[in-house]
Amino acid sequence: MIVAADNPVTIAGLPQAAEIAGRDLEVVVECDTGRQRAGVETPGEAVELAKLIAGSKGLRFAGFLMYPPEDGWARTQVFLDTANAGLREAGLEASIVSTGGSPNIPHIGELKGATEHRAGTSIFNDRMQVAAGVATLEDCALTVYATVVSRAGPERGILDSGSKTLTSDSGGLDGHGHILEYPAARIAKFAEEHGFLDLSASNDRPGVGEIVRVVPNHVCVVVNMVDRLVTVRGRELVGELPVAARGKLV
Amino acid sequence: MIVAADNPVTIAGLPQAAEIAGRDLEVVVECDTGRQRAGVETPGEAVELAKLIAGSKGLRFAGFLMYPPEDGWARTQVFLDTANAGLREAGLEASIVSTGGSPNIPHIGELKGATEHRAGTSIFNDRMQVAAGVATLEDCALTVYATVVSRAGPERGILDSGSKTLTSDSGGLDGHGHILEYPAARIAKFAEEHGFLDLSASNDRPGVGEIVRVVPNHVCVVVNMVDRLVTVRGRELVGELPVAARGKLV
Repeated sequence: MIVAADNPVTIAGLPQAAEIAGRDLEVVVECDTGRQRAGVETPGEAVELAKLIAGSKGLRFAGFLMYPPEDGWARTQVFLDTANAGLREAGLEASIVSTGGSPNIPHIGELKGATEHRAGTSIFNDRMQVAAGVATLEDCALTVYATVVSRAGPERGILDSGSKTLTSDSGGLDGHGHILEYPAARIAKFAEEHGFLDLSASNDRPGVGEIVRVVPNHVCVVVNMVDRLVTVRGRELVGELPVAARGKLV
Repeated sequence: MIVAADNPVTIAGLPQAAEIAGRDLEVVVECDTGRQRAGVETPGEAVELAKLIAGSKGLRFAGFLMYPPEDGWARTQVFLDTANAGLREAGLEASIVSTGGSPNIPHIGELKGATEHRAGTSIFNDRMQVAAGVATLEDCALTVYATVVSRAGPERGILDSGSKTLTSDSGGLDGHGHILEYPAARIAKFAEEHGFLDLSASNDRPGVGEIVRVVPNHVCVVVNMVDRLVTVRGRELVGELPVAARGKLV
């Protein structure tokens, strides 16, 4: 386990954790290079935290973690080069320079000095990745099998999958998922256990009892809704994948 | 267990379930009285399904289930009275007439013939219920204890609770929850594990490491994110509540 920190308060709590674990703890400094997630905002702060980590009992400075903005990595390169120069002056080195995330895949290799890229969504891909142009529907490996449980009227239908399955993470997209068998059907809104279908634009319309496959807008949070995934090859059940870390947020 | 159905296909699958369970199964007919959730749209359809249930092996017609629109229950009364008249002609009776949901609490008692009201959110209440005028913040019994893990700049902060904890169910409200200690702080957006605070309107601002309590927008889906709830009285841990049905959607 390698942990990330972007401030002295977090770092101050880590030596105790290392002591309890009975081992040294590697710590990376999270850097905000324009994306405005977590992270220090200047290379100078990054170097100061690196020195603080290196001087803390039981901690080892491991490098930098960042999630660059999607509009190119020029700013991130300047940040990294400046921080690395500061590290050298302090006799330190970043053995890890970690970039993210999945929509940034087209930029992999552009940052000189990067050692890894985190692209969690790419394991399965989803409708957001398709919308971002970094995946096709054929690249989406996870679908939710949903049953049409009601057809209230000719232009309406109800899936047994609502916000407790597909989640309300919209990703800024219209509708709450893409139904592979009925691409013109729109999952217009949610109850917790129901997805409300607007079928007005769909010439083909599913019947009650029909099972459809939904590509979720944001697959990461959908995985987190279940204790296990079922793996299939065609129509054959192949196995199961436990979602081991679900519910482990404290 | 009593199940709901609003179409013949669903009803046709129930006798087998009853046979497997080795007992009769009570079935209510879900009625759409204007809310456009699930449900048959006319009293005539409701009576036809009641007859179908009553004539099915192992099934017993138990009554009607509805989720009336929030603008008053006059239409629902007409629906129910007409359906009840049809039942009498068929020699049937609705022993259950179930209304919902939590925002409809002010209407309880208005529907003649109702036998129960489902108000699940009222167990805890949430920011949506407060916005609907049926609860106060003091009535909200569930809060998410979140830690401020970063303060990127003077007007920004980051909670360790994102869409995998508070969920993206917005309820049409601004911001992703109400922070009791900093009511002017806004949970402006989410990553999966992070809530991004906009502190620009807040004179008081939390420090890194500070724990705050968040009233979620929609508590029902928040409960569904965890395996257990911790109960507290003041600052004392009192016990735990398992979330027994979480992850049981199939």
